[in-house]
Amino acid sequence: MGSYSIASNDNEQVNNKQIIFCDYISGFPKETDFVLKTSTIRLKLPRGSNGVLVKNLYLSCDAYMRFRMTKGGNSVVSAFKPGSPMVGYGVARVLDSGSQEMKKGDVVWGFTGWEEYSFITDTKSLVTIKYTDVPLSYYAGILGKAGMTAYAGFHEICSPKKGEYVFVSAAAGAVGQLVGQFAMLMGCYVVGCAGSNEKVHLLKNKLMFHEAFNYNEEHNLDAALKRYFPKGIDIYFENVGGEMIDAVLLNMRRNGRIAMCGAISQYNLDQPYGVKNLSCIISKSIRMEGFVVFIMIINCSPIHTRREDCVHGRCCGGT
Amino acid sequence: MGSYSIASNDNEQVNNKQIIFCDYISGFPKETDFVLKTSTIRLKLPRGSNGVLVKNLYLSCDAYMRFRMTKGGNSVVSAFKPGSPMVGYGVARVLDSGSQEMKKGDVVWGFTGWEEYSFITDTKSLVTIKYTDVPLSYYAGILGKAGMTAYAGFHEICSPKKGEYVFVSAAAGAVGQLVGQFAMLMGCYVVGCAGSNEKVHLLKNKLMFHEAFNYNEEHNLDAALKRYFPKGIDIYFENVGGEMIDAVLLNMRRNGRIAMCGAISQYNLDQPYGVKNLSCIISKSIRMEGFVVFIMIINCSPIHTRREDCVHGRCCGGT
Repeated sequence: MGSYSIASNDNEQVNNKQIIFCDYISGFPKETDFVLKTSTIRLKLPRGSNGVLVKNLYLSCDAYMRFRMTKGGNSVVSAFKPGSPMVGYGVARVLDSGSQEMKKGDVVWGFTGWEEYSFITDTKSLVTIKYTDVPLSYYAGILGKAGMTAYAGFHEICSPKKGEYVFVSAAAGAVGQLVGQFAMLMGCYVVGCAGSNEKVHLLKNKLMFHEAFNYNEEHNLDAALKRYFPKGIDIYFENVGGEMIDAVLLNMRRNGRIAMCGAISQYNLDQPYGVKNLSCIISKSIRMEGFVVFIMIINCSPIHTRREDCVHGRCCGGT
Repeated sequence: MGSYSIASNDNEQVNNKQIIFCDYISGFPKETDFVLKTSTIRLKLPRGSNGVLVKNLYLSCDAYMRFRMTKGGNSVVSAFKPGSPMVGYGVARVLDSGSQEMKKGDVVWGFTGWEEYSFITDTKSLVTIKYTDVPLSYYAGILGKAGMTAYAGFHEICSPKKGEYVFVSAAAGAVGQLVGQFAMLMGCYVVGCAGSNEKVHLLKNKLMFHEAFNYNEEHNLDAALKRYFPKGIDIYFENVGGEMIDAVLLNMRRNGRIAMCGAISQYNLDQPYGVKNLSCIISKSIRMEGFVVFIMIINCSPIHTRREDCVHGRCCGGT
């Protein structure tokens, strides 16, 4: 294990396709906000670097990335740099390493570039993948950020109990569909909502949610929730914000829990929706808690290991 | 201790001044929504009753009572009965008892009528007062519902730590001023807001809050909070709702806690204010939790004892 392993040809330059973030975005992102560019990269670290040079294998596209497209980012993530490749979670193979933590040939998970090869100087986010007996693409989903978000949000924030009524919004999304699976494994009754009949079909027939509905076909979200939850909702996994959270608050049960994971309906708006039913939080003794999985990872690294062990073991048929 | 103690004169009828709730109210209550009436009452229980007959000594007027003036009440409390006396927490002396739990001469705390004497058939809410070495009026305040609300809300919901930044709205109110005291006893930095300069003076000069401000004199609540909390707010004890919670959300620190106790600014509105900054709950990993002290009492009677012991010992100079 050498910090300065040598590539076959020190001066080898290869083409490197990159997805470039053109400039800050307001409103809905358009395809023209990004451009595909081919540059070149030398497949060897500069002498003395303690970074890593990786070949990217899988990238995940996650909702939080929208914040990075806004000038200034938000309080959790910084903005992307216009003219540079996008950055996100991904799976990559180490081609050259100056880090004590990783060696050539390791497969790692963490922040990398939206490009074929990345030279990563800040390696703090990278962890060496422990289980390689599953498809590595799983680390862009259930064993990656989406899985960690769903696992931490559901198990650490929602305090689920067998038999409870669980509602998941954006249920066909990367996180939502996994929350549904975790909830079903807990013995909960699980209903999801999504924005198309195709997604609802997926939820009911492939992901085996107990029920699912298309919110675009409901004139009255409150009435829809009353139909699916005649006894009310114990746990709401919030991914959308806006009118949905208002309708959910009316249908929560006493001592209900709401994990605030995202508010995708609000990310492209200049003026956010005003939520009117917060007083339900008082009258029903609801706990509403937000979380940011990045920060949970930083503050509590056992979450990562526990999630990886648990999810790998229970959902991927591993040991 | 007899279940059927005998009053001096079985047929004695006395005048009983009562505050009658005339009819359901929408909008702000007016003085004409209530009427003072004098009826008569026999100071002895009907034979076989397991209720109690009490002389009311102190009554507390609490914000939640507004819900009881609305047709249908809310999910926690039922509506008052038009034409009947108001009902609320109070301190009373037992004149005659058919209950195994209380005897003649006991001083009790719990739900009673807004009248001189009450015949209480449902005695579940009544508890015999343990400490009588303090003014009994304290049981309409710090040792009553207000004290229990402040204690449970601050200590059970807010998880306070020494040195944290605490903001209390409606800080000159019955609950708010006590939250401020509990927070200062914990070694927190405490700022309160209120709606008049007289109240602000009380907060700063008598109740010794570190700072206080009059929200009616602030054009921009966000700017006011930034002035008083340049490092942000760790704990917000919410009594008001509306624009204040929106401004507070912008100023909360990471892992902040919000105890949702009340939303007095909203109780007389037909259309509640729409809260726009809920996404801060996600980005700052905030826990926002509602509570209803009635239900905490029912579900967790030790809270009552613990609060009474603790508050009496620490704040009232008792043992």
